[in-house]
Amino acid sequence: MTRSRQLTLTALPGIPLINQGDDLAALIEQALAGESLSLLDGDVLVVTSKIVAKAEGRLVELSGVQPSAEARSLAAETGKDPRLVEVILRESRGVLRKRPGLIIAEHRLGFICANAGVDHSNVRGEGDTSGDWVLLLPESPDASASALRDRLEHESGARIGVLIIDSHGRAWRHGTVGIAIGVAGFPALVDLRGEPDLFSEPLRVTQVGLADEIAAAASAVMGQADEGYPVVHVRGLPYELQEGSLGELLRPEEQDLFR
Amino acid sequence: MTRSRQLTLTALPGIPLINQGDDLAALIEQALAGESLSLLDGDVLVVTSKIVAKAEGRLVELSGVQPSAEARSLAAETGKDPRLVEVILRESRGVLRKRPGLIIAEHRLGFICANAGVDHSNVRGEGDTSGDWVLLLPESPDASASALRDRLEHESGARIGVLIIDSHGRAWRHGTVGIAIGVAGFPALVDLRGEPDLFSEPLRVTQVGLADEIAAAASAVMGQADEGYPVVHVRGLPYELQEGSLGELLRPEEQDLFR
Repeated sequence: MTRSRQLTLTALPGIPLINQGDDLAALIEQALAGESLSLLDGDVLVVTSKIVAKAEGRLVELSGVQPSAEARSLAAETGKDPRLVEVILRESRGVLRKRPGLIIAEHRLGFICANAGVDHSNVRGEGDTSGDWVLLLPESPDASASALRDRLEHESGARIGVLIIDSHGRAWRHGTVGIAIGVAGFPALVDLRGEPDLFSEPLRVTQVGLADEIAAAASAVMGQADEGYPVVHVRGLPYELQEGSLGELLRPEEQDLFR
Repeated sequence: MTRSRQLTLTALPGIPLINQGDDLAALIEQALAGESLSLLDGDVLVVTSKIVAKAEGRLVELSGVQPSAEARSLAAETGKDPRLVEVILRESRGVLRKRPGLIIAEHRLGFICANAGVDHSNVRGEGDTSGDWVLLLPESPDASASALRDRLEHESGARIGVLIIDSHGRAWRHGTVGIAIGVAGFPALVDLRGEPDLFSEPLRVTQVGLADEIAAAASAVMGQADEGYPVVHVRGLPYELQEGSLGELLRPEEQDLFR
């Protein structure tokens, strides 16, 4: 008789609005303690990119942005603020699609998403509530995830994984889903090629985007509109933790049929 | 002080290999009882498309398939078995991309995936282990989900949701993720357009692909290679259940920039 498996996702209350320089690891530890949760080997913490970016001071006030000719042209095509478009272009390797209201770009980190992840909602400058602020994604989400993991592992003694997630739209389907943009200590892609199937015949190619599955799961329990649940604790992952990175999940342009 | 939220996914043991005509609702009830789980209002059951399709007898033996000229041509281009390609074409509205080893099609139900969801692994005919069998997706996954829900609600008295899921590859990213192909009693797409954000400014368009997020979560706890966990019980969804359908998730071709 096989045993049941249980995956438990706990959205942590008590994470305050984050400002530049805030110590996320300490805030997460406090939130865990508030739930009487001690980190154990194999646990995973999923953190929204937004609070990581805010702690890293990735806010930009649009009045200080000088749009280039390219940004002005793309702004005219899409009906967006030329200064916002300038920020998007600075965060991008290139624009895949554009139409009124929509810019889909390859982010400089290699993933494809709307507006290169530049966020115009739930953003306000510190001590400046009048400006028009936008928030970039973290500079290097893998590094941010690693730094968080190192702190939390050091202080708990447990071996854990950390994912930094954003919400992206998809080709072909309506609705955003949580996806991983930063990975530490977590197998982003699980490669099951060659393992036997139930009838002991070789499986065909099966690679599972495990970090994205857990990102989606965490996003579902966080809810939306930053309701105050930017961190989710995950216990019961039926896979061994190991080193991992965002790069595992990114299909190179030359292998991609949808650019 | 806000309260924590907990989403618990339990992969149920004890579901046997499924054959045509098996009573999935009864098998799920037995598996739930084996875990001492009683269905409660708001619970969700996530079921792999594979066991639904097997119960519905969606197996096809390739020796009985006569490939058309179109199938033979596409088989030559992709290096696939012409009979398999014929089955894929019968399940498709059209082929989006093709290259050696790969056919990406619009399934007749409207979603985009490799091989129109026709599965060549972990498939064996009943009483015929020598043939070359493939498994189609369920005929009408929304209807299959509704039938399962009706049975389980009738016998438990609880109001529940049911998702039927498959694993699909994505544009731009490596790795498959669980996604919903059949929906009953579950808000497939949660529309948060117009709700205020944290600073009481109107949110920009936010539609969340909630059924796909829960499908991905369930897929992560099922593991892969049909390890014997084709059904996952979900408790703690922070959204109200309501009627829903696959159609909510499908972006019409004329709105889609990636076909």
